[in-house]
Amino acid sequence: MESKSNGQKTSLVGIPEPTVRRMPQYLNLIREIHRNGEPNISAPVIGRILRIDATQVVKDLACTGISGKPRVGYVVEELLFALEAFLGYHRQHEAFLVGAGFLGSSLIQYQGFRDAGVNIVAAFDNDPSKIGKEIAGIKVYSMNKFSDLVQRLHIPIGIITTPAEVAQSVAEQMVVWGIRAIWNFAPVALRLPDNIILQDTHFYANLAVIVNKLEQSEPQAKKGSKK
Amino acid sequence: MESKSNGQKTSLVGIPEPTVRRMPQYLNLIREIHRNGEPNISAPVIGRILRIDATQVVKDLACTGISGKPRVGYVVEELLFALEAFLGYHRQHEAFLVGAGFLGSSLIQYQGFRDAGVNIVAAFDNDPSKIGKEIAGIKVYSMNKFSDLVQRLHIPIGIITTPAEVAQSVAEQMVVWGIRAIWNFAPVALRLPDNIILQDTHFYANLAVIVNKLEQSEPQAKKGSKK
Repeated sequence: MESKSNGQKTSLVGIPEPTVRRMPQYLNLIREIHRNGEPNISAPVIGRILRIDATQVVKDLACTGISGKPRVGYVVEELLFALEAFLGYHRQHEAFLVGAGFLGSSLIQYQGFRDAGVNIVAAFDNDPSKIGKEIAGIKVYSMNKFSDLVQRLHIPIGIITTPAEVAQSVAEQMVVWGIRAIWNFAPVALRLPDNIILQDTHFYANLAVIVNKLEQSEPQAKKGSKK
Repeated sequence: MESKSNGQKTSLVGIPEPTVRRMPQYLNLIREIHRNGEPNISAPVIGRILRIDATQVVKDLACTGISGKPRVGYVVEELLFALEAFLGYHRQHEAFLVGAGFLGSSLIQYQGFRDAGVNIVAAFDNDPSKIGKEIAGIKVYSMNKFSDLVQRLHIPIGIITTPAEVAQSVAEQMVVWGIRAIWNFAPVALRLPDNIILQDTHFYANLAVIVNKLEQSEPQAKKGSKK
């Protein structure tokens, strides 16, 4: 572990996850402000727009190493650069994706993650009809090649877009082969060692809430009429 | 509001959101158990596999209207049907998607949501080069048509895949035009009336946490080498 007082502008240790999760929101707003040509912006204004308490805004943005000045606020250009740097948008972290089905293929084609510092460089599947194909220029390899390629290329991120029932075993293999961060789209709660960075995107949980609440709020008449 | 004691098997009122979010995990597990031909499963076994406290499992599954029997547990076939019914997988709720860029197009092509009861039936954009085109059989309309079509077709769900800076105004228009549930993929915290069902899928927040934690855990030597 790094000491917090090593003279670096920002301490990279112990930034709360909610703060990190808000950073892309700040970045989006500051990009917009920057495009509009505003030279400065204050924490209360940022807070009002994003509906975040101004004190929290000051705390969050301090994690990028930038602080505002009384009356003037933040220099927009400085803050923009600091946020992009904090979020690693100036670097690229490479990722392997496992599960080249519809969702996996969609994510590969989307590749909006590249701007956010994550670059999918290869896909893996065990379906012979998919192996050897290319999706948006990204090649699909047999799962047999995964361990060798991860180790040779020092790939830090594994993206799981497999069916739910194989996600846990794929994740475990990823850990064994040296993957340090897993982004899981399969609708399962993965059980992994504490040192593995894990983020879930649970589409189906979102959908379950939407559908359940919609049906709760539906007029009774309509409920009776569907069969 | 419905009374809870109206003789219905399940009360549709006031099921906690964390319970609802866990339902797709139960469904996935029970589907697998069903495929394996097991006739029964107990709450402790479900809990052990999904790492959920057995008491919580019992409470969650009771919301589907099904309860287990002492020693025997749940009848897998019954539970499967009840979970699918609870999650609305036997019905379809129609959705309009606004923002037919890369992400929107990917979601339309994915359409894995259909199995979960949500069906994207049309897309909208204000880019003239996109209007009139079809993506996986789904037509892209001008935003001008949105209000008319939402009202005529009683569409309950709006999916937002626009750039961040227009997401709030798109969401407000959706509310005015009668959309009851919004699924937001834009990296902004939308401010909406309390009666609107809102679910966010914040890819960029996931990415921010992954990238930030990776960089925290990186050996110092490697940090020095990137410029």
